[in-house]
Amino acid sequence: MSTFAAVDIIRAKRDGQELRTEQIQWVIDAYTRHEVAEEQMSALLMAILLNGMSGAEIAAWTTAMIESGRRMDLSAVPRPTVDKHSTGGVGDKISLPLVPLVAACGAAVPQLSGRGLGHTGGTLDKMESIAGWRATLSPQEMTDQLSTLGAVICAASEDLAPADRKLYALRDVTGTVESIPMIAASIMSKKIAEGTSALVLDVKVGTGAFMKRADHAAELARTMVELGTREGVRTSALLTDMSTPLGVAVGNAIEVAESVEVLAGGGPADVVELTVALARQMVELAGLSVDPADVLASGQAMDCWRAMVSAQGGDPDAPLPTPRFREVVVADEAGVVAELDALPVGLAAWRLGAGRARKEHAVQAAAGVLCLAKPGQTVRIGQPLFELHTNTPDKFPAALADLDGAIRIAPAGTTVHRPALVQDVITAG
Amino acid sequence: MSTFAAVDIIRAKRDGQELRTEQIQWVIDAYTRHEVAEEQMSALLMAILLNGMSGAEIAAWTTAMIESGRRMDLSAVPRPTVDKHSTGGVGDKISLPLVPLVAACGAAVPQLSGRGLGHTGGTLDKMESIAGWRATLSPQEMTDQLSTLGAVICAASEDLAPADRKLYALRDVTGTVESIPMIAASIMSKKIAEGTSALVLDVKVGTGAFMKRADHAAELARTMVELGTREGVRTSALLTDMSTPLGVAVGNAIEVAESVEVLAGGGPADVVELTVALARQMVELAGLSVDPADVLASGQAMDCWRAMVSAQGGDPDAPLPTPRFREVVVADEAGVVAELDALPVGLAAWRLGAGRARKEHAVQAAAGVLCLAKPGQTVRIGQPLFELHTNTPDKFPAALADLDGAIRIAPAGTTVHRPALVQDVITAG
Repeated sequence: MSTFAAVDIIRAKRDGQELRTEQIQWVIDAYTRHEVAEEQMSALLMAILLNGMSGAEIAAWTTAMIESGRRMDLSAVPRPTVDKHSTGGVGDKISLPLVPLVAACGAAVPQLSGRGLGHTGGTLDKMESIAGWRATLSPQEMTDQLSTLGAVICAASEDLAPADRKLYALRDVTGTVESIPMIAASIMSKKIAEGTSALVLDVKVGTGAFMKRADHAAELARTMVELGTREGVRTSALLTDMSTPLGVAVGNAIEVAESVEVLAGGGPADVVELTVALARQMVELAGLSVDPADVLASGQAMDCWRAMVSAQGGDPDAPLPTPRFREVVVADEAGVVAELDALPVGLAAWRLGAGRARKEHAVQAAAGVLCLAKPGQTVRIGQPLFELHTNTPDKFPAALADLDGAIRIAPAGTTVHRPALVQDVITAG
Repeated sequence: MSTFAAVDIIRAKRDGQELRTEQIQWVIDAYTRHEVAEEQMSALLMAILLNGMSGAEIAAWTTAMIESGRRMDLSAVPRPTVDKHSTGGVGDKISLPLVPLVAACGAAVPQLSGRGLGHTGGTLDKMESIAGWRATLSPQEMTDQLSTLGAVICAASEDLAPADRKLYALRDVTGTVESIPMIAASIMSKKIAEGTSALVLDVKVGTGAFMKRADHAAELARTMVELGTREGVRTSALLTDMSTPLGVAVGNAIEVAESVEVLAGGGPADVVELTVALARQMVELAGLSVDPADVLASGQAMDCWRAMVSAQGGDPDAPLPTPRFREVVVADEAGVVAELDALPVGLAAWRLGAGRARKEHAVQAAAGVLCLAKPGQTVRIGQPLFELHTNTPDKFPAALADLDGAIRIAPAGTTVHRPALVQDVITAG
């Protein structure tokens, strides 16, 4: 491998030049080996954020991050592999019903997941509400479970794109998170390293999403689809609305409960709609020809869920944790819910203990918010709008303050505009 | 003092906002106290380099750097104080004759200086060629010498704008040196903290200068003049040519010898011209009404030089160090010197030992290059063009390679365009 001076690479990007593949390979590798200093990498990241990266640069950056660790080999799995990644939303429990559903359709879903940080929850945090369930599997356990059940939700191992982990921690403290090329490279390096053959991206847009603007979300989606395709992973993306929470439950255990409702054939309409829409994309990319809606109705997805939970030590029949304290917010006017803003709901749930402020903190399984009135729904005075759950009641005042103004009630009869849940589908080529 | 989060300040500058004075005060202070991390400051520096700073931001940044240390008080000095700063050039020994000349005109010149790094030399390195001379004075010794002689060349103390020292080291490794606001703040924080009432800037432009382009040099000059004026220091700037070395000598001891020639009434015409031009500006800003040319001719500047050298332990009559090895480059064609490029000459001298690659390295007092044919001069085949001096003869091949192509000889009779030495004068308001 060639050797470069970090400062020359920084200067080139600063001056608007396109970095060469060898320069990117070197700088990521040398940074992972602590040979390029944190302060040099952060200057480079800021130059990238402000001056952008070309498609070739993003691809080289992604490859270099994959090569910083181990690329998983799923070739022994006797099913087509397909995964899903969401950019994170409020009440986004979709992975929970989706993974067993797509597995029940005949695919293998190697869902390596993360924990939540900030106002959007983490899939592992939700799953850990289930008594006995464990997130950590060895590569062999994961491959075996994928082969037999087709469904795995587990923690990514430490050697999956370690450069990305180090870079993310740096971006977080240096104001360099908000770079579309870097977000795309971060997500895709982990998904490509995981070894899946196909991938569907759920790119959220709206107040509760990381991307507030539709054009930014579309750019991110296109960047990732191009990147996946370039690396030989069949990739497509849905752009989905995150201006309002998904479903009723925002938290951990309450989201598991809502997911189980969906698997049982019930659950909120939006959660069912998005689960089926994503499943259809995944099944198509996997080359299968069943309709996930039928599979969901058949109960096979529920069977797979129970088997998946059990395989990882969980008891699918164990009662879920309940909160020690509840508080209810009621409507002080009658009318129709015109808006329910995802961001304050996410913040309130986070503050009640559903999320963490620092990586090393624990979350409360029972904490969260139930959204009892969704946009378009008619409410009367005194009707419950939110139910707040926590084991730490001193958090109620701040969470209630977050929710103040989160819901807007218009006079009865007002026509409420509700954005389509799936706003766009972006496919390769 | 208010408290901020570093990441919010980085984001604000990244997004093109103007930072408030309190934000700048806080971030510089917290950085100096190691509370803002190096990687955060470097991201901020890159955002500043790419998005710029307003006049108010530059002033706040400069003030914050001054306040990171001690501001000197020269009010006890019974003469008007005036200093000069050069942005650095090849063969730029002007401080050596200039400081005693302006002192002999009646002003006090508190020339706090630095050592060289890279291809332009440092005033202290040159002065240390003089046997016994010491660069370090206590603040009291400096004030006393200023009061009695009016002339001091010495090292800046550690507590003069320490934030600037820390920042410069960071900028050096993170590709963030080339920011005009930051260069201006760095220079001016030290000069303002030094306590001078007036300041003349020698902003170099051309191949041998840090600023290669005239528009960049003019912008830097204007930024610094505005900054000084804003802080109550009467400030003006000369834009001077640095496309070719100043004088004949490029090194340390050989530049001292050339400076003494100027003080004795001789020396190269360009060195005399620039010394007198800068002295006139300084004398004017100091409110004095003598003509430095007359003072130079009278021998008083030489007397002051001798007193200044002696006051700091030096022997003005001691023989200067001579090199153990010399090499001569001769003309292989006859004609007129059309160009003599400053940069390769500076690099050759640096490589022969006149400069240092790292801060902790020592320089060779006797190393350097004599430029024996300057632009406009007629040469015959075999006539010496350069004389290379060093104590480490293994450096000759690389230095000779630097000088290859440094001089361009045109057919005899060709009219050679020589840019004016003083290209522009920039004054306040």
